[in-house]
Amino acid sequence: MRFERAAIVGVGLIGGSLALAARRAGLIDEAIGIGRSAANLAVACERGLIDRTVADLADVGPVDLVVLAVPVRSTASVMRELLPQVPAGAIVTDVGSVKGEVVTALEALLPPDRPFVGAHPIAGSERGGAAEARADLFHGAPCILTPTTQTDRVALGRVRALWEGVGARVEEMSPAAHDRALAFVSHLPHVVAYALVRALGDPALAAVSGGSWRDATRVAESKPELWRDILLANAEAVVAATDAFAAQLAALRQAVLRGDADALMAWLEAATAEKQRQTGSTAPHKGEAP
Amino acid sequence: MRFERAAIVGVGLIGGSLALAARRAGLIDEAIGIGRSAANLAVACERGLIDRTVADLADVGPVDLVVLAVPVRSTASVMRELLPQVPAGAIVTDVGSVKGEVVTALEALLPPDRPFVGAHPIAGSERGGAAEARADLFHGAPCILTPTTQTDRVALGRVRALWEGVGARVEEMSPAAHDRALAFVSHLPHVVAYALVRALGDPALAAVSGGSWRDATRVAESKPELWRDILLANAEAVVAATDAFAAQLAALRQAVLRGDADALMAWLEAATAEKQRQTGSTAPHKGEAP
Repeated sequence: MRFERAAIVGVGLIGGSLALAARRAGLIDEAIGIGRSAANLAVACERGLIDRTVADLADVGPVDLVVLAVPVRSTASVMRELLPQVPAGAIVTDVGSVKGEVVTALEALLPPDRPFVGAHPIAGSERGGAAEARADLFHGAPCILTPTTQTDRVALGRVRALWEGVGARVEEMSPAAHDRALAFVSHLPHVVAYALVRALGDPALAAVSGGSWRDATRVAESKPELWRDILLANAEAVVAATDAFAAQLAALRQAVLRGDADALMAWLEAATAEKQRQTGSTAPHKGEAP
Repeated sequence: MRFERAAIVGVGLIGGSLALAARRAGLIDEAIGIGRSAANLAVACERGLIDRTVADLADVGPVDLVVLAVPVRSTASVMRELLPQVPAGAIVTDVGSVKGEVVTALEALLPPDRPFVGAHPIAGSERGGAAEARADLFHGAPCILTPTTQTDRVALGRVRALWEGVGARVEEMSPAAHDRALAFVSHLPHVVAYALVRALGDPALAAVSGGSWRDATRVAESKPELWRDILLANAEAVVAATDAFAAQLAALRQAVLRGDADALMAWLEAATAEKQRQTGSTAPHKGEAP
């Protein structure tokens, strides 16, 4: 059930960590890294995340696993270029933070004998790149697989085994359900973090901040290019989540403005109760989102 | 310059940590704890945060330092009850997250021979109580003193020495400037966290969340009573900060809704640049806000 030769397209935090963890776990024999940044690939080689690297997609050679770990909006074009080297029977998977658009494009692109399985490990960070990759990144982290009616069940099982083999808690959802959920639990917190740092005005005020500001704005260091793509690829669900949040914010603001202590207390108590229910749903893990 | 006998009114995370740290540093000889919860006071005694405890404010006896570490809206009434036992020359200080209201009330209440100095160590947490107190809580954390034209300069110097002695980075601001700053860097992140957890809807979605959701919502576990009081005591600045944030959120939402990749990229790049400027203003420390 192991893969003999995997192309890791994009050897950043996620692609690099998966290559390292899967090789250590004996799930992949050989991992070939490819990416846009020669400097990043050099780090990936030095750190032993991958076995070797090639300069061009055309030089990857026959592989039985393709892991697309590139920005969401590049996934389909990268796959189109790589397709001639992917023999029948090989499995293609991705790690993208948005699934609807990607899954539709990849299923249209790939013939049935090169099955695609959409995957999203929830283990990102505001700090990317091969330098940040580590073998335990996925330990206990959720990884969502997004099969459709077209998905090959054998391929689905092998991708599940790969993610379970590196320690992830695998769940399955439709691409649309994934995108609605992630709009709330990942894309919205990023939107909020970006809006908070822009709202502050005087950067010197950060000098009197503590843990609540630090944590609320941590992911505002994330790469703008990556998040532009994620937000656009999931625009409808992101706007809906933002609107739901803005409505709650407006209600809280109104209670503060009116000075209504009872209404405010009831509102805050409902929030902490909700938080407790949510915490009960969350298994402890060390991973970071997206 | 050491205090012989301090009343620590409210032996929670902040009051308990200050008592412990100041006693270890030789800044306070004896700390008498008082609070509403006998169970919490028992923990404070067991953990050696304080020397002893009294059941009633009337039993504290003569002290040369009073540290008011109670919820913001109780500060003045507690002081009123304690005042008969506070001899001339004693210094009164607080640790409240909102200063305008508290400083005005305390300055009106206290005669000039019992000077008041407002203070706010930025080292709170969503987890309070004597059980969480620790001697290094204030190491490297900001502590804001809020002197006014009425403030006794000797008392100000002694309160500064106390906070510097437990490792805090002391800054001075007017009560109004403090409240405007904290509305942004502490009260707003709490408002946002509470609104996020209420916006989620299905608590099961938290099972597919990662670090961004966890960090953005961490402080939504904070005590509703405490935050009701803080938000009401600083209502005007909190509403202003919320409005500034909501305007940024609306601009970001609009760029996503329009699918305008260039506008969105420019907006996100401005945010990450702002974040970098803010990070440059923040000294590293382990403390948590409020």
